[in-house]
Amino acid sequence: MNLETLFQKVKKQPTETVAVAHAVDPSVFLTAERAIEEDIASFIFTGPREEMEKAAKKAGFSFRHDPRVQWINTPDENSSANKAIELIKEHHASVLMKGMLPTAVLLKAVLKKEGGLRTGNILSHVAGFSLPHRNKLLFITDSAMNISPDLTDKTAIVQNAVTAVKRMGVSKPKVAILAAVETVNTNMPATLDAASLVQMSKRGQINDCVIDGPLGFDSAVSTEAAEQKNIQSSVAGQADILLVPSIEAGNILYKSLTYFAGATVGGLLVGARAAVVVSSRSDSVDSKLFSLAMAISTKISKKSITQGE
Amino acid sequence: MNLETLFQKVKKQPTETVAVAHAVDPSVFLTAERAIEEDIASFIFTGPREEMEKAAKKAGFSFRHDPRVQWINTPDENSSANKAIELIKEHHASVLMKGMLPTAVLLKAVLKKEGGLRTGNILSHVAGFSLPHRNKLLFITDSAMNISPDLTDKTAIVQNAVTAVKRMGVSKPKVAILAAVETVNTNMPATLDAASLVQMSKRGQINDCVIDGPLGFDSAVSTEAAEQKNIQSSVAGQADILLVPSIEAGNILYKSLTYFAGATVGGLLVGARAAVVVSSRSDSVDSKLFSLAMAISTKISKKSITQGE
Repeated sequence: MNLETLFQKVKKQPTETVAVAHAVDPSVFLTAERAIEEDIASFIFTGPREEMEKAAKKAGFSFRHDPRVQWINTPDENSSANKAIELIKEHHASVLMKGMLPTAVLLKAVLKKEGGLRTGNILSHVAGFSLPHRNKLLFITDSAMNISPDLTDKTAIVQNAVTAVKRMGVSKPKVAILAAVETVNTNMPATLDAASLVQMSKRGQINDCVIDGPLGFDSAVSTEAAEQKNIQSSVAGQADILLVPSIEAGNILYKSLTYFAGATVGGLLVGARAAVVVSSRSDSVDSKLFSLAMAISTKISKKSITQGE
Repeated sequence: MNLETLFQKVKKQPTETVAVAHAVDPSVFLTAERAIEEDIASFIFTGPREEMEKAAKKAGFSFRHDPRVQWINTPDENSSANKAIELIKEHHASVLMKGMLPTAVLLKAVLKKEGGLRTGNILSHVAGFSLPHRNKLLFITDSAMNISPDLTDKTAIVQNAVTAVKRMGVSKPKVAILAAVETVNTNMPATLDAASLVQMSKRGQINDCVIDGPLGFDSAVSTEAAEQKNIQSSVAGQADILLVPSIEAGNILYKSLTYFAGATVGGLLVGARAAVVVSSRSDSVDSKLFSLAMAISTKISKKSITQGE
């Protein structure tokens, strides 16, 4: 699956509605403009009405009076976040998108016990990369949310990513557990976790995927590198999902691909009742659109559910 | 400093001699051919004479009888490694290069207490990257040698890299201590180490460099990213050296730059009595030549010493 097939899939789905929390930044409306033009989403914007109007105008947002757009007047960041979450819970929207408010404020609302979007599952981040030298998307987890995941967390993080990527359209994702080496090394905890995750997947403790590791980044993405190292693996060279050993490794990888490899990147938080898009203001519109497409594609629409998905 | 200025510097230096341990692989001679052609090094090859001859012939090595080339017949890997190290200790050569033997065998010989090349200092790896979208070299340490360095190790690793990069020609290297965030976070040990390293450098415990951190990879290499985040720093956006928080983070970064960012990469081990080039057989000749240039440039020649370097 590449960026184009992801968008094609999303366009074929019934249109989903995105609830935007505190939509007072023009970049939100630049993204919404493209998403509506490309017919992948409707929007409900929450925030102080006048500020939203101003931001929309500044962005030249042409769908202000379109039936695919609704506005809900909320006085401040917290009420915008809570309202957007309520819209999800009441099935008026199926994707949550951060507008212009601190991620921490939105996450606090998502994670609160009463009225939040918790499912009992860990919340984790999945980043998607479209790379000039690769013919399919590469997903990386978790480079942004969980600081120092232990093996239990990693199990949940992998399952979260697998579920999301499967819904995006990869039927049995190949998961590489990244480390600095390909051998299990008692001095390198990432390699021990890798061995456990492989066995857990064989025992049905993690489902719908093929897992292998420890694998170096090179063996995970390059068939030649894997062959040179004589690694027999159905994941090596063809990984869809990379589990990074730490938030540092993930964050550095994320940014190196963005800054030096010409990647287009999307990302979302999974594990809550709805996918949450937490792009930064500085992300490009293309990147935000990619994130939206990822989020929308992970939504199982009512239609597909009744069709027995 | 970019790749070209590095090579220019090396060409201006008096020619150094490289001792190659167990030179029984054609790729060694492909590299030596280029290095001699470009007038950056002389070579002493150790290894079983016939196997070396065969490999040299296979590579079309045209300097077999040149005065810049010497051959020393040794029966096996261990004796080749020991002989090459002896050549360094007796000042017949100033750079050690791995031929075709396991890195562990060479390192064991380097690190042995009697007759090795120890200086009392930690041995660490410095990788150099020439990137299409960057006008100066980027150095990363330590992505290959030290598995889980504590703060004491990191101090030595930074100092090793600074000393090497300074000798390569960067007068006061800017060092970014990488983490996933730019704030000091009690839950993220990499950020605490960063804060300590910054203060250590201010107190003169690490010398000849400017250190800042914690910095994300983006803030370290992109002035725009640093500005967007309002980071006031004389390192941000212009880092020469990146200290990675773990071998995993470093290894993944190294490989992402190699596989997706079109980087030309060199690398060497520093902290021993001579720089050690430990390229893999699969590295390109360009990469090996880069490693050699890095290693040779870190050598303070007798001439420069008498000139007061």
